Amino acid sequence: MTHTDAATEGNEAAALLEHTRSLVDPHLRAAVASLPGSIRRVAMYHFGWQHADGSPAAGGAGKAIRPALVLAATRALGGDPRDAVRAAVAVELAHNFTLLHDDVIDEDRTRRHRATAWAVFGIPDAVIAGDAMLALAQRLLAEDARAVSPRASARLSTCVIELCAGQQADCAFEERGPDEVSLDECLAMATAKTGALLGCACALGALYAGVDEQAVGAMDGFGREAGLAFQLIDDLIGIWGDPAQTGKPVGADLAAHKKSLPVVAALTSGTPAAAELATLYRGAMNTAGEVSRAADAVDRAGGRDWAQVCAADRMARAVHHLSRAVPDLSAAGDLLALAEFVTRRAH
Amino acid sequence: MTHTDAATEGNEAAALLEHTRSLVDPHLRAAVASLPGSIRRVAMYHFGWQHADGSPAAGGAGKAIRPALVLAATRALGGDPRDAVRAAVAVELAHNFTLLHDDVIDEDRTRRHRATAWAVFGIPDAVIAGDAMLALAQRLLAEDARAVSPRASARLSTCVIELCAGQQADCAFEERGPDEVSLDECLAMATAKTGALLGCACALGALYAGVDEQAVGAMDGFGREAGLAFQLIDDLIGIWGDPAQTGKPVGADLAAHKKSLPVVAALTSGTPAAAELATLYRGAMNTAGEVSRAADAVDRAGGRDWAQVCAADRMARAVHHLSRAVPDLSAAGDLLALAEFVTRRAH
Repeated sequence: MTHTDAATEGNEAAALLEHTRSLVDPHLRAAVASLPGSIRRVAMYHFGWQHADGSPAAGGAGKAIRPALVLAATRALGGDPRDAVRAAVAVELAHNFTLLHDDVIDEDRTRRHRATAWAVFGIPDAVIAGDAMLALAQRLLAEDARAVSPRASARLSTCVIELCAGQQADCAFEERGPDEVSLDECLAMATAKTGALLGCACALGALYAGVDEQAVGAMDGFGREAGLAFQLIDDLIGIWGDPAQTGKPVGADLAAHKKSLPVVAALTSGTPAAAELATLYRGAMNTAGEVSRAADAVDRAGGRDWAQVCAADRMARAVHHLSRAVPDLSAAGDLLALAEFVTRRAH
Repeated sequence: MTHTDAATEGNEAAALLEHTRSLVDPHLRAAVASLPGSIRRVAMYHFGWQHADGSPAAGGAGKAIRPALVLAATRALGGDPRDAVRAAVAVELAHNFTLLHDDVIDEDRTRRHRATAWAVFGIPDAVIAGDAMLALAQRLLAEDARAVSPRASARLSTCVIELCAGQQADCAFEERGPDEVSLDECLAMATAKTGALLGCACALGALYAGVDEQAVGAMDGFGREAGLAFQLIDDLIGIWGDPAQTGKPVGADLAAHKKSLPVVAALTSGTPAAAELATLYRGAMNTAGEVSRAADAVDRAGGRDWAQVCAADRMARAVHHLSRAVPDLSAAGDLLALAEFVTRRAH
């Protein structure tokens, strides 16, 4: 693919995300507006629609990748995306439920260039807002009169349980030593924590297109593998990303001793750089120099290359799943554009 | 009612609760067993089925009042309680989701005579286990092939949002001064925090009996009012209850400066005892003597009597709602026995 093709595809994905937001945002805002006032306040801050004092803010509510996948999946399978808007909103709410709780659990104070909800409103309000957001997601699906809505609801609930398992594993890994987490465990964690919801988004889109369970499962597989590719790239950004883009300090994941995929790949590489990285991970790593040396060690231990190759491999698997559900891939242009977009953010 | 009648009715309710547990527990255990291992461990501890080290424990999973209400509501309306077992399990899971999160939020270290889940496993694991339990409740309803299940799911989700609002209000009240919470606000909070789920339990039971929306709404009203009566009694127990029965230290709610219903009724009574209580509430109240004087002030300010009269009034309203759904109240003996049971626990 030439540079121009890539740029065009990036623009295509950007246009898709923009179009998704125009379809989904009014419904997302209406759903959030239905929450009780004290909870709505936290939710509107979290989505970037209000400042902490309740005054209106221009900020957007994230990239809307998951709702875009829902709608694109419905379209790719011959359905009408308008039928799936409610499901797209539900998936976005479920995603934001995880963000609210993960920020509490991980004690992250910054997200999308702003203070996290718990840092502004306290842990109780952030936990409660997350709970209400999950219940709201479920209510939207339950109130949908379409016959597939119970299946969508069951899939979303199963997915949330998997997200919980992923988050739990992520926390548990932080407690272990630098050489006590295997790459397989780490891949399983990332699949649960990130792949599951992207898979669920695609599966729900497929459900609302009215296809059979096999095609729904294939679409889940597509989203899941694309999600893992996304996570690998996100992990690379967490180490080498531009703070102006990420809204987080440089090397934030390393400073937090996060056992992200490139880090674990490096730690388990058996190279001299792996030992060096393990030593850094056993220490406090609270200077910029140490964080920079850790990033360098991940690179020299092959963690950076491995993550890039693995991301490409997962994308290939994703496309293979997709081709089972959509034999003529030309109908799945939007899905492919979105998948390529999320896995090319780092470049 | 003579003392003998009361004892008989208490036994009747105890037998109902026992029977409910025998119907519901196997399904509750199977549902919990379906959770991923790391989350299941926390859930099994929380339910009292395992010790912290994972060894089996004989402890029971609470009184099963909410599942008993689901099944009794179905029966009272001519349905087969076996159809509603799944809904009963879902309601019990939703209830335990709130317990797990409320204990984190309120920093309560003891429940059912044991250390709370977060005190044993840490805040992240307890928050995650609560999240997964809520999703599991929703999954059970979504996977139920009966035609009413989406309506049940929508009602449970709406109820969870109301529970969240109630818990949020409860926390917010703690931040305010002793004379800055009105009795109306406090009653609204208790309705949301406790009434909503008991109402939802009865409404779900009605749904699974296949009655119309009006009867479902009346059953919701019954459970909601009975729930408020229950909360009033629970608040009295929180002040004057026997620690051996409650598993909490004597006057625990006063020592925690909780603005429970009898306390707010006392604080807003305009009596000399109200001023005395307000002064105690503005202080640390960390000695047994101060806690005892606060309890005495609530009593002299009329908070204790008010709560008892209000509980009786709410029970009368509950029965009025019930009679709209079940004109021949003799068919609703189980529901009435349960309602009387929960509001007589203090005696």
